[in-house]
Amino acid sequence: MKALTYHGTGRRSWEDVPDPAVVDAEDAVVRVDAVTICGTDLHILKGDVPEVEPGRVLGHEAVGTVLEVGAGVRTVRPGDRVLVSCISACGRCRYCRAAAYGQCTGGGGWILGHRVDGTQAEMVRIPFADMSLHKLPAGVSDEAAVLLADILPTSYEVGVRNGNVGPGDTVAIVGAGPIGLAAVITARLYTPASIVVIDPDTGRLDAAKRFGADVTLTPDQAPEEAVRALTGDGFGAHAVIEAVGVPEAFEMCTRLVRPGGHVANVGVHGRPATLHLEDLWIRNVTITTGLVDTSSTPRLLDMLAAGRLDTAGLVTHRFGLDEMQDAYDVFSRAGETGALKVVLFRG
Amino acid sequence: MKALTYHGTGRRSWEDVPDPAVVDAEDAVVRVDAVTICGTDLHILKGDVPEVEPGRVLGHEAVGTVLEVGAGVRTVRPGDRVLVSCISACGRCRYCRAAAYGQCTGGGGWILGHRVDGTQAEMVRIPFADMSLHKLPAGVSDEAAVLLADILPTSYEVGVRNGNVGPGDTVAIVGAGPIGLAAVITARLYTPASIVVIDPDTGRLDAAKRFGADVTLTPDQAPEEAVRALTGDGFGAHAVIEAVGVPEAFEMCTRLVRPGGHVANVGVHGRPATLHLEDLWIRNVTITTGLVDTSSTPRLLDMLAAGRLDTAGLVTHRFGLDEMQDAYDVFSRAGETGALKVVLFRG
Amino acid sequence: MKALTYHGTGRRSWEDVPDPAVVDAEDAVVRVDAVTICGTDLHILKGDVPEVEPGRVLGHEAVGTVLEVGAGVRTVRPGDRVLVSCISACGRCRYCRAAAYGQCTGGGGWILGHRVDGTQAEMVRIPFADMSLHKLPAGVSDEAAVLLADILPTSYEVGVRNGNVGPGDTVAIVGAGPIGLAAVITARLYTPASIVVIDPDTGRLDAAKRFGADVTLTPDQAPEEAVRALTGDGFGAHAVIEAVGVPEAFEMCTRLVRPGGHVANVGVHGRPATLHLEDLWIRNVTITTGLVDTSSTPRLLDMLAAGRLDTAGLVTHRFGLDEMQDAYDVFSRAGETGALKVVLFRG
Amino acid sequence: MKALTYHGTGRRSWEDVPDPAVVDAEDAVVRVDAVTICGTDLHILKGDVPEVEPGRVLGHEAVGTVLEVGAGVRTVRPGDRVLVSCISACGRCRYCRAAAYGQCTGGGGWILGHRVDGTQAEMVRIPFADMSLHKLPAGVSDEAAVLLADILPTSYEVGVRNGNVGPGDTVAIVGAGPIGLAAVITARLYTPASIVVIDPDTGRLDAAKRFGADVTLTPDQAPEEAVRALTGDGFGAHAVIEAVGVPEAFEMCTRLVRPGGHVANVGVHGRPATLHLEDLWIRNVTITTGLVDTSSTPRLLDMLAAGRLDTAGLVTHRFGLDEMQDAYDVFSRAGETGALKVVLFRG
Repeated sequence: MKALTYHGTGRRSWEDVPDPAVVDAEDAVVRVDAVTICGTDLHILKGDVPEVEPGRVLGHEAVGTVLEVGAGVRTVRPGDRVLVSCISACGRCRYCRAAAYGQCTGGGGWILGHRVDGTQAEMVRIPFADMSLHKLPAGVSDEAAVLLADILPTSYEVGVRNGNVGPGDTVAIVGAGPIGLAAVITARLYTPASIVVIDPDTGRLDAAKRFGADVTLTPDQAPEEAVRALTGDGFGAHAVIEAVGVPEAFEMCTRLVRPGGHVANVGVHGRPATLHLEDLWIRNVTITTGLVDTSSTPRLLDMLAAGRLDTAGLVTHRFGLDEMQDAYDVFSRAGETGALKVVLFRG
Repeated sequence: MKALTYHGTGRRSWEDVPDPAVVDAEDAVVRVDAVTICGTDLHILKGDVPEVEPGRVLGHEAVGTVLEVGAGVRTVRPGDRVLVSCISACGRCRYCRAAAYGQCTGGGGWILGHRVDGTQAEMVRIPFADMSLHKLPAGVSDEAAVLLADILPTSYEVGVRNGNVGPGDTVAIVGAGPIGLAAVITARLYTPASIVVIDPDTGRLDAAKRFGADVTLTPDQAPEEAVRALTGDGFGAHAVIEAVGVPEAFEMCTRLVRPGGHVANVGVHGRPATLHLEDLWIRNVTITTGLVDTSSTPRLLDMLAAGRLDTAGLVTHRFGLDEMQDAYDVFSRAGETGALKVVLFRG
Repeated sequence: MKALTYHGTGRRSWEDVPDPAVVDAEDAVVRVDAVTICGTDLHILKGDVPEVEPGRVLGHEAVGTVLEVGAGVRTVRPGDRVLVSCISACGRCRYCRAAAYGQCTGGGGWILGHRVDGTQAEMVRIPFADMSLHKLPAGVSDEAAVLLADILPTSYEVGVRNGNVGPGDTVAIVGAGPIGLAAVITARLYTPASIVVIDPDTGRLDAAKRFGADVTLTPDQAPEEAVRALTGDGFGAHAVIEAVGVPEAFEMCTRLVRPGGHVANVGVHGRPATLHLEDLWIRNVTITTGLVDTSSTPRLLDMLAAGRLDTAGLVTHRFGLDEMQDAYDVFSRAGETGALKVVLFRG
Repeated sequence: MKALTYHGTGRRSWEDVPDPAVVDAEDAVVRVDAVTICGTDLHILKGDVPEVEPGRVLGHEAVGTVLEVGAGVRTVRPGDRVLVSCISACGRCRYCRAAAYGQCTGGGGWILGHRVDGTQAEMVRIPFADMSLHKLPAGVSDEAAVLLADILPTSYEVGVRNGNVGPGDTVAIVGAGPIGLAAVITARLYTPASIVVIDPDTGRLDAAKRFGADVTLTPDQAPEEAVRALTGDGFGAHAVIEAVGVPEAFEMCTRLVRPGGHVANVGVHGRPATLHLEDLWIRNVTITTGLVDTSSTPRLLDMLAAGRLDTAGLVTHRFGLDEMQDAYDVFSRAGETGALKVVLFRG
């Protein structure tokens, strides 16, 4: 089959690789019907994720059709349409038992396109298939569903729920890339009073408005004051979501949050940030970090099927699966192309 | 009356000041029966808390007897034995309505010995008396009760409860000063499997053992490895409590905590810390800060009365009220004197 | 002034009574600008609430303008537009400190139109004014705001939040009277996947549809099976809200709920119900009861001001204040008149 | 092998049955080293659990040694000492994913000695072995561990945690049988201010005292008044645990609880109870039911290994495995024999 293969820093190839097969009794082999590219894949290509070995097929998000299952698989059958979650789960370790699948210590966690071959291919082997695949409800499109492989549960669990967003809150979201925009969508599930999005790119701020942001600001528009002014009592945001992954963005978050509020970090960071404990120690602030667990994925699929999750607009570019290299080009030049999520479909 | 008065950096005096009186209808005047000194008072004397003006009577912890109340006071009467909480509360603002009294925006919060005259005196005026005084249950001694003015609720609320300590947890406490030791006492209310205390002072570690620490370590004994070894699964502490207030201690806390665990900062910080988001972003860690709200104080008084809170040993030195200067000397040289809490009693 | 006065079972009169005045330092006197009638007022008139004494002015919901305040009132001033909450709160007792104002043991709780004279009058004295009045944000109409005196916080706190409604849930609401409809509105704040409303009155079911119910059923349409069919997995509703107050309705709720789900009782009951523990003991069900605390009122006012709470349609009939008797007639014959909430406005 | 076999109402036999074998890849076969008898087994013998078919081997609690595992078992190996949990779990269904294993819809839940052959035998087949067995930590005795198969997690999860027991609470436990006594032990993990136990049997009340009850009462000693008197404020118990399973006991619980408190039902009920909603609707009461999930079992094992769970005294009688019939006799005549838990050990 064809697959997008990593060959060391900066080198990727859409090339022939052996077909995957069931190796373990809990495996499934899935035909990829729709797949997307994540910012993390770009990080891997930059060499930022050294545990990814040359020859690895990338990708950790897909929708597909089950082709074959091992003897130990009970919940999916060949022919089932499934969502391939970015997180695999052994289901047995203490973290999995607490639904913290992202922290799985039994061989799961983020493994696809990382420690085992991933989804940017015509087929993919899925370990722990029962815990790592989700049957699609009827009436859900591949394009909508594939966004639930990573970006929607990530923004929902690590951003919105860790941030304790609730009805009537003022929510500030720093970063209007795909994850920040998905945070706008999923924050709205709780009917906050106001969502403020901060990003230097005014094009992305326009997108944020379309997804439901009430106020958008560039960092040079004094967001701290603006957010305080927005909250009736002048104390700042109840929930602040970091969706960038650089120290400056995180530090802005800690200035935007009110006493008693939450800062939920979603961004992938490569450098330490400064935590101004000399200001924060007294302010009853909660800061959370986290890799997505995808424990919310079945529920998000229900919501998608029920028409409660409007992801329209997140996918900006569509390709055939064999246009993988073009899709990478478009996605990696998002500043020019305006790409949010790109999706590749089986022909 | 006599009172301990601040006269600028490094200068304190036990001197005659005017007797306090009821000014506002919600005030009470309380005769001080027992009072203690807090590390924060030493910070004020060092000049670290510039909003404290010369002439200010210090102190925010006391047990006393109500002498007089304003017309608006409903819950205490002259003659009542009361605990003077370190936190005053207007009771009306949004923070008070959420029991976040430490963040009171209606004129309360930490004001005693800070923005209004405090408790290190023969008498003290208490604003918002209904919300800021707590009647003592019968059978509770002044010495035990005075520890509930600040140190016990602080360690319990900001350390143990923010840290989400629960039965069977491994708890690490960095710092074995009075707050760290009070954290040992209050963590034990939840029956953790193991409490590890880390401090460079072996005398304080001995004290920690007496209060119930299971393991004590100096920072040069590789506490990260020791704590991981202690937890059956090797992942580190479920709850880590920072009870020092320096960046190094906070940063150690973030290395001691397991994925999914909590770091509860209690220490008063004067400098920023480094937050290693490049390691932490993926680890599902919750970090909290906070000033005590004293929302738990009535409950802690119940527990003291019921014999469920054993504070014996926290008070190492006792003085008469007019030995205030000596008490300050002993407390400020804790390294030599072994002082934990010093209590001064009305003669 | 004129007021609606209770004179024993079945007897009410719109009559001259003495003007209220500030009696206690924490009182305010409020001019009534808009007032409504509650089902509870009808219960009082039936003699079901024997502690209401003849001569009592009824009513516990209003919007008005502060005329006068006692010396101890800090947060409202003459001229302020305010919401009069159905719950008064001393602010000092243990229940008030936990924001459980409905359970106030210091002289508050539900007292207006019950133990002290109420709001169905030209003016009303409000004890504990700081804790019992809420300043109206700009731009909020009297008609919208008066619904936040009781019905909105009741359905939100006692129904939706006690019922633990969350995104993607199936919510069943038994009863489509004003409280049931308000539960539809406030459940939607959490974006459930589906809201099912059950009521024998098809007119009220039509109203439920207009407020956002997805499915409506009469009790003879086998709601247990219908609700189970609606949930993808066939187990029943995540949250069930009882908004009637009769045993049959409550018992239906316990059949609608799924294992692990919540039954939130909002209805006012006069008779015991049968709890089928022989079925329920094994099913991980949580049942809650409660009088509203109105702890959510400030937040609901924020949401109203932000345009996040759409109450349009709940008010079906409008009157002048001196048409009080007519308003009672219309409201008490709701079956014929189609009345949901009736509001009376100062001329 | 020998096994205790049910042969219809009132008939049990310790007889030869075929040895169990691995049938499914996820099975394990375990040699029984210690086993106990549950009140539920007596219910089965009375014919109260009609789905149990004649020929069924009873028993759902054991400690044993793994003899053989299927190809799909990853976490236990032959030779491992394991706890056999009363609850089996498929690990894949929505309930298992929420750690609600007791509600498993994938073939697990309470199946041992119920729908498949159980533990009162020399060997037992355990389906879903990875999720249903727990490796024993070193240093934990068979006798102590076997109590964690059912009674300890049941009292802890369904009683203490559902009852929201916390430091300083007044806890009332109705019923001083094994589950009630285990609730005393596990409630103490949270350091309540006072534990009151109510039972008509003064011998069991003496046992309750030994396990740490502060006050014991027979039902004719006006427990409602006594409990209210015990709580400083006179409002009743914060948490009430029903550990009997009859309507009268449950109804007493609803009279013992304070406004805002919790009633946690643990008892197995065969008849409906009366729920006095005419009193309770206004009192902010939470009532929970539930079958144990055993989600806490790994944590309780940690606590046992750490010496934090003192179960000494719960086992009153010890037998050899082939004395099964005698053990049933002693356990079923607990009123005369004083039996709490009886444990049978492999010779």
